[in-house]
Amino acid sequence: MISIGIDVGSVAAKAAAYDGEKIIATALLPTGWSPKESGGQLLKEIMGDLNITRDDISTIVGTGYGRVSLSFIDKKVTEITCHGRGAHYIDPNIRTVIDIGGQDSKIIKLNDKGTVIDFLMNDKCAAGTGRFLQVMANALEVDVGDLSELAAGTEPANINSMCTVFAESEVVSLMAEGASKEAIASGLLHSVCNKTYSLASRMGVENKVFFSGGVSRNKKLGELLSNKLGVSIISTDESQFLGAIGAAIIGYK
Amino acid sequence: MISIGIDVGSVAAKAAAYDGEKIIATALLPTGWSPKESGGQLLKEIMGDLNITRDDISTIVGTGYGRVSLSFIDKKVTEITCHGRGAHYIDPNIRTVIDIGGQDSKIIKLNDKGTVIDFLMNDKCAAGTGRFLQVMANALEVDVGDLSELAAGTEPANINSMCTVFAESEVVSLMAEGASKEAIASGLLHSVCNKTYSLASRMGVENKVFFSGGVSRNKKLGELLSNKLGVSIISTDESQFLGAIGAAIIGYK
Ligand code: SF4
Repeated sequence: MISIGIDVGSVAAKAAAYDGEKIIATALLPTGWSPKESGGQLLKEIMGDLNITRDDISTIVGTGYGRVSLSFIDKKVTEITCHGRGAHYIDPNIRTVIDIGGQDSKIIKLNDKGTVIDFLMNDKCAAGTGRFLQVMANALEVDVGDLSELAAGTEPANINSMCTVFAESEVVSLMAEGASKEAIASGLLHSVCNKTYSLASRMGVENKVFFSGGVSRNKKLGELLSNKLGVSIISTDESQFLGAIGAAIIGYK
Repeated sequence: MISIGIDVGSVAAKAAAYDGEKIIATALLPTGWSPKESGGQLLKEIMGDLNITRDDISTIVGTGYGRVSLSFIDKKVTEITCHGRGAHYIDPNIRTVIDIGGQDSKIIKLNDKGTVIDFLMNDKCAAGTGRFLQVMANALEVDVGDLSELAAGTEPANINSMCTVFAESEVVSLMAEGASKEAIASGLLHSVCNKTYSLASRMGVENKVFFSGGVSRNKKLGELLSNKLGVSIISTDESQFLGAIGAAIIGYK
């Protein structure tokens, strides 16, 4: 039997399938307007990939903010718990997860069994989240996926405001003054790094640190965080599936 | 002799002239790109209005965030102090000033001499400031000056996020779902009211309360604040000149 985890986030919906030993498939879709539709679509996709039917699935666990809309799931689990379990699967030595998603950021502390022992979350303020970078990439007229490369090897422009709205005005002014996109991109990543640092340092960060969430694809930001926190930070391509992986594992029986 | 106060804010630059007894002239300009230029322009304008020369002016006092750029002033005074003094001039019974400007909001407590005894300021977060309303009016495709009238007599739509960025997305969704502009405008004013309330209640609010700053032209917001705080709130057309008035009075000798 196989268990499935579905993690419907604000930007992307993710699914993972677990066979009791390892993750055997993952899938990803934009969340779009309807978490229910994207969740259902993912389930179909992963069953198609694995060439299985609903009868081969023991449990489906939903997580992420859109989990409440999923009518076909057996169980709902908070994303904090799922992220913890997912990180433990990837590396049992992980003790801290820094997760930066499209609309929130979280710091999660784990014990050696992958159980969450503490966490802090910011979901009230767009600063320091993927949304901040999205707004800024827009102002800079670049793709958000290019910010990391743009910022690499450049001294950061000074961006004083943490607030997304005020920082956006600063970016517009900096461009008008002729600052390079590279320097501005670097300044923006420093801003997200500082905001994350101030969240993380309220709880303390223990090795190993895993960087997850959509924003973890930004390699340069990972480097900045690692320097600022004075720890080494790991991240993998699986990191955006952390919640789905954890949900699948929790659902397995 | 006459003293002049110049208050260069983030959105508007204001000037006032004082003859030792009363304010004899005021002037207003958009701050634009250069606080120095708009400040200088205001000085010319007010001298023209009063038909006076530089020799008739004893002192020029600058206040507001742009005061640092004014090379022709005799003295700089913080806007908090100037607001207090300006409010005392308008009505000596004022004990609390709620000032909501283009980029910040402040709660100022005064004694019976118009001296500031305590204050709280938010200039880090665009929520609860004029900027919030500007962004939202844009999303609603209405003029920010029409929000008060739009919102009058309508039940507010529910806007859950305080954050400007997240609230903007809510406004876009509400419009897509067919909510009326009136209900959304009302919801937005409730949001600013709640944010102001949480700042004000950290310090306590004592009668009489004066509502100033550019956002105080929004009559409906004044009503909401008055209900929420359980105090009567006064505001006058002079209220946007509070800082300039205070600066002129402080400068008089
Ligand atoms: S600081 Fe800016 S981004 Fe953060 S809550 Fe306030 S408005 Fe939103």
